[in-house]
Amino acid sequence: MIVFGKNPVIEALRSGRNIEKVLVAHDSHPPYQVLKLCKEKGIKLQKVPRQKIEELAGTKKTQGILALLSPVEYVAPEKLFRLALERNSFFLTLDHITDPQNVGNLLRTCEVLGGVGALMPKDRACPINQTVVKASAGAVFYLNLSKVSSLSKALRVFKEMGGFVYVVERGGKDINKVSLAGGCTLVLGSEGEGVSKSLHELADEVITIPMRGRVNSLNVSSAGAIAMWEFTRSYSNT
Amino acid sequence: MIVFGKNPVIEALRSGRNIEKVLVAHDSHPPYQVLKLCKEKGIKLQKVPRQKIEELAGTKKTQGILALLSPVEYVAPEKLFRLALERNSFFLTLDHITDPQNVGNLLRTCEVLGGVGALMPKDRACPINQTVVKASAGAVFYLNLSKVSSLSKALRVFKEMGGFVYVVERGGKDINKVSLAGGCTLVLGSEGEGVSKSLHELADEVITIPMRGRVNSLNVSSAGAIAMWEFTRSYSNT
Repeated sequence: MIVFGKNPVIEALRSGRNIEKVLVAHDSHPPYQVLKLCKEKGIKLQKVPRQKIEELAGTKKTQGILALLSPVEYVAPEKLFRLALERNSFFLTLDHITDPQNVGNLLRTCEVLGGVGALMPKDRACPINQTVVKASAGAVFYLNLSKVSSLSKALRVFKEMGGFVYVVERGGKDINKVSLAGGCTLVLGSEGEGVSKSLHELADEVITIPMRGRVNSLNVSSAGAIAMWEFTRSYSNT
Repeated sequence: MIVFGKNPVIEALRSGRNIEKVLVAHDSHPPYQVLKLCKEKGIKLQKVPRQKIEELAGTKKTQGILALLSPVEYVAPEKLFRLALERNSFFLTLDHITDPQNVGNLLRTCEVLGGVGALMPKDRACPINQTVVKASAGAVFYLNLSKVSSLSKALRVFKEMGGFVYVVERGGKDINKVSLAGGCTLVLGSEGEGVSKSLHELADEVITIPMRGRVNSLNVSSAGAIAMWEFTRSYSNT
């Protein structure tokens, strides 16, 4: 899952292996080749304390550079979109959900209920790490996962292809009163910040799970489970 | 949340405060009064390594005894049952679910969707600790929570009062084809072991969420969210 030292990281980058991100110690300069390869491949380069790199590597001999390899192969967003449309199914759009338990749990539910995969942003998202793999119960290996620089740009393409965008959030239409169309995405946001404005603007409908209690929100993985279930249920009844 | 030392623990027990359990170091003998009070009040007394008590207390001066106080007040199971029946609502029965994230998450969803509370066993269950409180987003303070020595004995009483018992597990009737009656409990089991045989025997129906993927089960908090939602939904439509 990790590679450290200048040459190993360069080779990992050159090999075309899926790399989540490259960490560089604050007090070191990454080699020019690393900078170039990261830029070419759109891989995030992050400055962190040297101690963090040493902890992850389990040794002090890291040359201040470490790459986090992804346990999954990502697919192009167009493939994800095409699958959802062809199968009259859905995929998740995870808008800056950073908790690995929630991400894993959502992916697990998605796979179990017959969703085709998930669209995630490159930035401010949770990498598919061991915690996510475990929480997903291995679902990550069966799903089509796609990472993009801009969720809104990608979803605009999906809409042009004929897909529907449903934002799951408070203040929208009662989910009981919406009939969800096949070939759609369910957009879920982080608990703190909710779904980004730019994605709200793309929504065919904002759908809301009616609440009856005094606690005013569901955990995102529970809200997601209910929304996915509603899709599956209404679709299986027609 | 914790009290340690012989006299403080005795006073906590005598005061009637809600105590989850009392921990005693392997190498010490609990005072007779502690044994007596725990027995009288049905509080679990657990032998643990002295180090664990010292870690929890943050000091070595514990006299080898520590009580975990509950942040919530429990209610009698009959109160929980009566509320579910009067309101035509539901409560959760958590059969040995020990992960605090799952317990908290389930309680949060229960409160948000209008459930009245939860029935839990005294043994092999997760105490309502800070992790549960946090994961529940405070829902524990609004719910009626009840702890009993035997879930099956308690649910037999619930059935005599007119309540329905639905076990949520694989191998049962498709949840889409069941109309859940108001005044019921949804029984959820641990991921490893499932729902106990003794509770299966009490089930009016075993209900199953149909799965379409290759991963063969949902996380218990997602399965619970879907089952609770189905109750809420079908009930709100009638």
